[in-house]
Amino acid sequence: MPFELTILGSSSALPTSDRYPTAQVLNILGRFFLIDCGEGTQIQLRRQKIGFSRIKHIFISHLHGDHYFGLIGLISTLNLLGLKTDIHIYSPSELKNLIQPQLDFIKGEMKINLIFHPLNFKKQQKIYEDKRVEVFSFPVKHSISTCGFLFKEIKKQPNIKKESIQTYNIPIAKIKEIKAGDDFVTEEGKIILNKDLTTPAPQPRSYAFCTDTAYHESIVNIVKGVDLLYHEATFLEELSDFAKKTKHSTAIDAANIAKLAKVKKLIIGHFSARFNDISLFEKEARTVFENTVAAEEGRTYRINKK
Amino acid sequence: MPFELTILGSSSALPTSDRYPTAQVLNILGRFFLIDCGEGTQIQLRRQKIGFSRIKHIFISHLHGDHYFGLIGLISTLNLLGLKTDIHIYSPSELKNLIQPQLDFIKGEMKINLIFHPLNFKKQQKIYEDKRVEVFSFPVKHSISTCGFLFKEIKKQPNIKKESIQTYNIPIAKIKEIKAGDDFVTEEGKIILNKDLTTPAPQPRSYAFCTDTAYHESIVNIVKGVDLLYHEATFLEELSDFAKKTKHSTAIDAANIAKLAKVKKLIIGHFSARFNDISLFEKEARTVFENTVAAEEGRTYRINKK
Repeated sequence: MPFELTILGSSSALPTSDRYPTAQVLNILGRFFLIDCGEGTQIQLRRQKIGFSRIKHIFISHLHGDHYFGLIGLISTLNLLGLKTDIHIYSPSELKNLIQPQLDFIKGEMKINLIFHPLNFKKQQKIYEDKRVEVFSFPVKHSISTCGFLFKEIKKQPNIKKESIQTYNIPIAKIKEIKAGDDFVTEEGKIILNKDLTTPAPQPRSYAFCTDTAYHESIVNIVKGVDLLYHEATFLEELSDFAKKTKHSTAIDAANIAKLAKVKKLIIGHFSARFNDISLFEKEARTVFENTVAAEEGRTYRINKK
Repeated sequence: MPFELTILGSSSALPTSDRYPTAQVLNILGRFFLIDCGEGTQIQLRRQKIGFSRIKHIFISHLHGDHYFGLIGLISTLNLLGLKTDIHIYSPSELKNLIQPQLDFIKGEMKINLIFHPLNFKKQQKIYEDKRVEVFSFPVKHSISTCGFLFKEIKKQPNIKKESIQTYNIPIAKIKEIKAGDDFVTEEGKIILNKDLTTPAPQPRSYAFCTDTAYHESIVNIVKGVDLLYHEATFLEELSDFAKKTKHSTAIDAANIAKLAKVKKLIIGHFSARFNDISLFEKEARTVFENTVAAEEGRTYRINKK
């Protein structure tokens, strides 16, 4: 059962010849969540052979163009493909107004149904939930209102061992209670402990996305212990003053958040176009947090079942 | 003195993994004209190492997204680069309204000055002129209002041969008249024919851009004899009925226009994503018009001085 992140774009605002602006796809158990949608996202989706029809939920962190200018093209393509489906967009409320004239222009041909969900920039909020996955938004610290996103599997109930059912003659009516944690009392009055009846479900996996943001310690508690953290690292340490001024992070900033939050693995991205050698970002971050990698476009990062 | 066309995108509406939507740059004597601006244009400009600051004139043929969705990203980048310059946009008048909310959103930071020039879809019109170049728009036949564009060098006056000035003792006051075509009468009353005094200026070069359009013979007179014609060829002949229905052209249609207009060379493009083997377009077109090439992204087509 997959839990995997594919990077479509890892550049910052100015275009480079070999990196796209921010976009990524998170596949949790077959749900494809698109996170940010910079210009060229649909081309990158094609290259990664990710079917457009799988995308039903799009999360837009903030309204700087490098995080949403690819959205209208993607919507237009979903429409040209004749998909009749709901598409949920979780974004700053102004996004709808920004693209409304373009949506109106193609209104006569619109087959997909866009549902906008405005983000809350004051506090953490659950914005999506189904039986297996939940998603939270939380405010980060940038020059305009910006949210990070936290994606979590919901912990399944434990499985009952088949042989226990036979051995202790457990009636079907009791199974729900045992899954919920109850012990079982046999006809002879013997108590069988829950732990001997069940095998624990896998530990839920989690991913957090934080870009664009300055170094902001209130992120730490929210992303505590996640398996994978994507945190922006627009600048190297030599430009830390400029990072502060523009409300971006350095590689060291990202690594400090990862270290304080005790995450399992850190991916850094949103590299400024002025730097050609991305390995320097990795090098700096690893002085603080060893398990860091620089985002590579087209690469998929898997979190295995635990 | 260059007259050269660089193809940035040659795909039609649906994205492919290896072709971008329509965009091209025409460099005439150092003036860089951007023609259409599909999603990803700014990335392609970077790849071709075409300086963003050279682009002052942008021509948008029509308002299907694959011809203009890259514009807001390009404007945003020109702005982030801090360029304080006029940018002229020649487009359907509605374009301004379509991107206005996005422009308003970055208004506080806007340094470039956008000047919109609405196109005329009723008749051919001169839309740009300087001492050396003129540009015309002309209506073509598509499902929404669409213009083609014709770019022409203006014919220079002939040069006077240096040795003539000495041999016949031509006063400076006479040079203007001779350049304009006059003969010269020497002090002895001998008439020297203009053709013996001058070397003719190079023949002016020309380029025409026609996409998106159905087969439309009224284009022929407008593009008559151009050195280079770019004409859309969305479909192969097997889909000619569908081409008519969607108001697009086949490769054969494009070749017929080129043949009737006696152009020197034809580039076909705007290929539908359903065809993988682009050489088939070339093959079909060449049965009608031999000097046809299929557009190749990143390739520059030069017209030499004549």
